[in-house]
Amino acid sequence: MTAVSIFSIPGVPDITSGDDLARILGDAIHSHAGGIAQNDILVVAQKVVSKAEGLFVDLDEVAPSAEAKELADQLGKDARYVEVVLRQSSRVVKHFWHPSQKEGTLICEHVSGHISANAGVDRSNVGGENRVLLLPRDPDACARRLHQSLQARFACAFGLVISDTFGRPWRLGQVNVAIGAAGLPALRTEIGNLDAHGRELSVTEPAFGDEIAAASGLVIGKASRTPLVMIRGLQWHEKPGCAGDLLRNQSEDMFK
Amino acid sequence: MTAVSIFSIPGVPDITSGDDLARILGDAIHSHAGGIAQNDILVVAQKVVSKAEGLFVDLDEVAPSAEAKELADQLGKDARYVEVVLRQSSRVVKHFWHPSQKEGTLICEHVSGHISANAGVDRSNVGGENRVLLLPRDPDACARRLHQSLQARFACAFGLVISDTFGRPWRLGQVNVAIGAAGLPALRTEIGNLDAHGRELSVTEPAFGDEIAAASGLVIGKASRTPLVMIRGLQWHEKPGCAGDLLRNQSEDMFK
Repeated sequence: MTAVSIFSIPGVPDITSGDDLARILGDAIHSHAGGIAQNDILVVAQKVVSKAEGLFVDLDEVAPSAEAKELADQLGKDARYVEVVLRQSSRVVKHFWHPSQKEGTLICEHVSGHISANAGVDRSNVGGENRVLLLPRDPDACARRLHQSLQARFACAFGLVISDTFGRPWRLGQVNVAIGAAGLPALRTEIGNLDAHGRELSVTEPAFGDEIAAASGLVIGKASRTPLVMIRGLQWHEKPGCAGDLLRNQSEDMFK
Repeated sequence: MTAVSIFSIPGVPDITSGDDLARILGDAIHSHAGGIAQNDILVVAQKVVSKAEGLFVDLDEVAPSAEAKELADQLGKDARYVEVVLRQSSRVVKHFWHPSQKEGTLICEHVSGHISANAGVDRSNVGGENRVLLLPRDPDACARRLHQSLQARFACAFGLVISDTFGRPWRLGQVNVAIGAAGLPALRTEIGNLDAHGRELSVTEPAFGDEIAAASGLVIGKASRTPLVMIRGLQWHEKPGCAGDLLRNQSEDMFK
């Protein structure tokens, strides 16, 4: 019987550009979770990672391109915001404006490969109407750095996920997904295992990083300041990977 | 600080057609979780629900239509299997065969509205190469019935989710999602709440049912017989809903 415990770790102050995030998170973990133990998994909200890296853009300083202006016009969006989104994107996957929406939806592939609304460029909880916050261009590298610093301090093998909140095709509501990961397999493999009847389980690959991120959403309130979650009690046998492992190759993309 | 505990409940035997699932699950909960307490959430794997309802089909007894034969040919699939999938579907959303795949992918909208590969028709863990297992046609109704029976026995307010394992567009690997729900809100609403900076959080609607299902995936091994998971320590203020609340209206479907 596997028993898993999930709790948010308090004590993380407002993060600003240049903060030593590993030290700040490490202090909160030390004070409120008794440190990191073998096989613990930390989930860190993307927002604090981006804030520590100073990935703010002031929309007043953005000159929108003709492309951004046209798209903004079609979607009822701020052209400066659309410009920032396009600069973070390798492609626009889909855009549409449904009568039920206050403004249109712009789905983009972020340069890291993750596909979401507005390439993850965030207007909430970043301080000021005209200020937006970008995703890290390489969130797996951020996860690795954070993991390395925390490992140096707590000296044990653990997992770390950087999560963001995504909408989904076909389903309403949002779930948290892994955009960065280190120290754990983002994708687990039950391929080739036999099921209880001896039949080969040919396609079972649990998206472990996304399961972890979604579970952390149960204890992270959007409106609260709880960017750090601990998940205890899990084990894995696969090699550590990265959140990039969760990305579908574009040639296999069923929706292009 | 919210602390949530997730564990699988042992003691559920192999389920067969006609079994009294509520009694069997209730016995396991009584023996291994000390009953159901206020705000507990039970996650039940779709497979045992379908098995108890006897939703097996023997492929040897299926005569494929011309449409099924043609689609099966295009996708390298068993025409009898495709026929069963089509009978469970309100529409074929997408089908394709990528060179990397052993056989093609058939994405369908199940009559319940949930969109997944093969309309959820399952060939693994159902006993025998030619036997397949269908999704319940109305999984929310199954969730309500199960919830009602367990509520009569344990006399408290709790949540129940019936989960299935789905692939996703754009992302590799599978996560568990809610296809049935009772006693809890499948979709939570933070719409209109203010964020920590006083800015309105206009689009935050956590897909609570799917978060719950994904979290349960952390303790359900596909190859193991653990169809029942308990999640303890969560609270909610919204009215109970159903998994149908998680379905995007087709007119808002960005991928049709």
